[in-house]
Amino acid sequence: MRTINELVQQHILKLDPYTPGQQPSGEGWIKLNTNEFPYAPPEAVMEAIKTEAKMLARYPNPTSQPLREVVAEFHGLHSDQVIIGNGSDDILNLLARAFGGDGRDTFETFPSYSLYPVLTAIAGGSIHSISFNEDFSLPVEELLDSKADLLFLTCPNAPTGIRFPMDELQALARGFDGLLVLDEAYAEFAEESAIPLLDDFQNVVITRTFSKAYGLAGLRVGYGLASAEVIGVLDRIRDSYNVNRLSQAGAMAAIGAQDYYQPAIGKIKSTRESVRAALEGMGWRVYPSEANFLFAEVLNGAGEKGAGAASSLFKHLEERKILVRYFSKHPLTEAFLRISIGTPSEMERFIEEVRQWQKSA
Amino acid sequence: MRTINELVQQHILKLDPYTPGQQPSGEGWIKLNTNEFPYAPPEAVMEAIKTEAKMLARYPNPTSQPLREVVAEFHGLHSDQVIIGNGSDDILNLLARAFGGDGRDTFETFPSYSLYPVLTAIAGGSIHSISFNEDFSLPVEELLDSKADLLFLTCPNAPTGIRFPMDELQALARGFDGLLVLDEAYAEFAEESAIPLLDDFQNVVITRTFSKAYGLAGLRVGYGLASAEVIGVLDRIRDSYNVNRLSQAGAMAAIGAQDYYQPAIGKIKSTRESVRAALEGMGWRVYPSEANFLFAEVLNGAGEKGAGAASSLFKHLEERKILVRYFSKHPLTEAFLRISIGTPSEMERFIEEVRQWQKSA
Repeated sequence: MRTINELVQQHILKLDPYTPGQQPSGEGWIKLNTNEFPYAPPEAVMEAIKTEAKMLARYPNPTSQPLREVVAEFHGLHSDQVIIGNGSDDILNLLARAFGGDGRDTFETFPSYSLYPVLTAIAGGSIHSISFNEDFSLPVEELLDSKADLLFLTCPNAPTGIRFPMDELQALARGFDGLLVLDEAYAEFAEESAIPLLDDFQNVVITRTFSKAYGLAGLRVGYGLASAEVIGVLDRIRDSYNVNRLSQAGAMAAIGAQDYYQPAIGKIKSTRESVRAALEGMGWRVYPSEANFLFAEVLNGAGEKGAGAASSLFKHLEERKILVRYFSKHPLTEAFLRISIGTPSEMERFIEEVRQWQKSA
Repeated sequence: MRTINELVQQHILKLDPYTPGQQPSGEGWIKLNTNEFPYAPPEAVMEAIKTEAKMLARYPNPTSQPLREVVAEFHGLHSDQVIIGNGSDDILNLLARAFGGDGRDTFETFPSYSLYPVLTAIAGGSIHSISFNEDFSLPVEELLDSKADLLFLTCPNAPTGIRFPMDELQALARGFDGLLVLDEAYAEFAEESAIPLLDDFQNVVITRTFSKAYGLAGLRVGYGLASAEVIGVLDRIRDSYNVNRLSQAGAMAAIGAQDYYQPAIGKIKSTRESVRAALEGMGWRVYPSEANFLFAEVLNGAGEKGAGAASSLFKHLEERKILVRYFSKHPLTEAFLRISIGTPSEMERFIEEVRQWQKSA
């Protein structure tokens, strides 16, 4: 009899699986590591879920059609330009399967969402990374020269929070010969979205999520926006019931609850600017962020920066039950911490602990 | 610029996507077409969902670990033998990707769950169908001779409802050189499960769902049971947050609510036997079912059977807002209807309409 290792597709044995951000167990943590929303969902979402729960014996709408229509209307698009996913990860996975995979060259920028290489590897394709310029701006010419079949680009970027200028994205879309995926997981916190590019470019896909600005990370809903042709391709390989009833109902209610979300998003943005000002006041370099996090180069009490300072602060915070994200494995990121924006009082605690650490380090 | 059709993986353009069972809109339908549970979820499930909804801003447990542990304990297994999916379709998809796909020969029995060929095609593999014997019994020798890398077998079978004898499944597992997937979507309605085979065979995988006997089709939760080695492979390619918070919480509560489910399942089984007796009393051939549906060869008022009779009754019922499932495309199934078991009063309505039709046809 053949062993399991003989039966499995060999590329799956070789790949390096995704590591999700730490989810601490136990109480009392200040969780600033996975860019979650610091406020509870609005009552309208809770009510929609409660009502829909009565219908759980029945299969959900397989295409999430009512939600597609609500999302389309919200963005001024047609519903055949929308696909709903079990989180935007689901959409990214479909894109990797349909347009990446065997014989296709997929590109990403680095640093970026570490799921792209994993999804590409699962699909049996090869991924190539192009590093950002040292100021984390977009290497447009290099990306155009890549001749990529598929390019994943997070904008606003993570982990930096930087939004790329529209004219650069436009130049990229115009000159690019493959499928250009703009992952707008954080776009609700930004001053501008690339959605208008969909009017002019058949090869642009935009992904969005309810996990960040809608505060529904636990509900797993995201969506993709593209030409009807691209959406049609993704629908061919989508799980037939990929989004459950409660997720569809909750997300529909969330889109309708802009009166709740817009002020909450405004508050997160102003908290972000206060934290940025505080860190800059301490002499840190902090990139201008249009997301719900900050990417900050750590400076210790002796005025030193680098991997030593960053990892020391990371540990100091973790010991005090404050979790931030540290990408230690690359020279471009090893001196930085990525700090999700929580409530004002959580961020005051964070700043206070940074000051304590600076005194001691 | 290349077109979308040039950019996409060509096998995806060629495949025939899955068609989910009809989900009628509007009120007043008796839905006997997708083997859903006819009763509402228990209060414990509703409460668990309501409580968990407060936590929606936070990502779910990525591995659904607490649910794995509850499922493992329920079946007397270790939690590393369990994987949780967004419906059992998710698990089937992972199996097709890991063990089917390019260069692998996947087999199914026919007729069976029409998703298997679709998942195989999406994975870039080829599927081969082996028809059941004419009495819908298991062609064990033919399956052993297939030299399949991966075999999907629904047991109890759909659409027939027939459970295969344990000694046949055992012989199959013993002699089979590939991965044997026993899709037990309906096993809670059956007299016996193949789970004990897991003790002896590393190459057996069992999939289960909360969509049928737990009445949670709208929640999308299923699971796979196998050796820790197989589970480890599937975890490498699973979506990092494939099951949302409400689904994990609802399914955990459901496993704990056996006092609610066991009598409800008993009621469905006794309703099934009454319906079977009524149809047999009208001279129909009805296969002995250990699922929550019946596969019945239609006989019209003139004593004729065949595709004409079956499609005539299907239409008669549909016009009266009773939906059953008709697989018209194959000689083995074209004379039959598959009838999900609803509440006793729904089934009385169904039988009454069959009698009306027989008088008129």
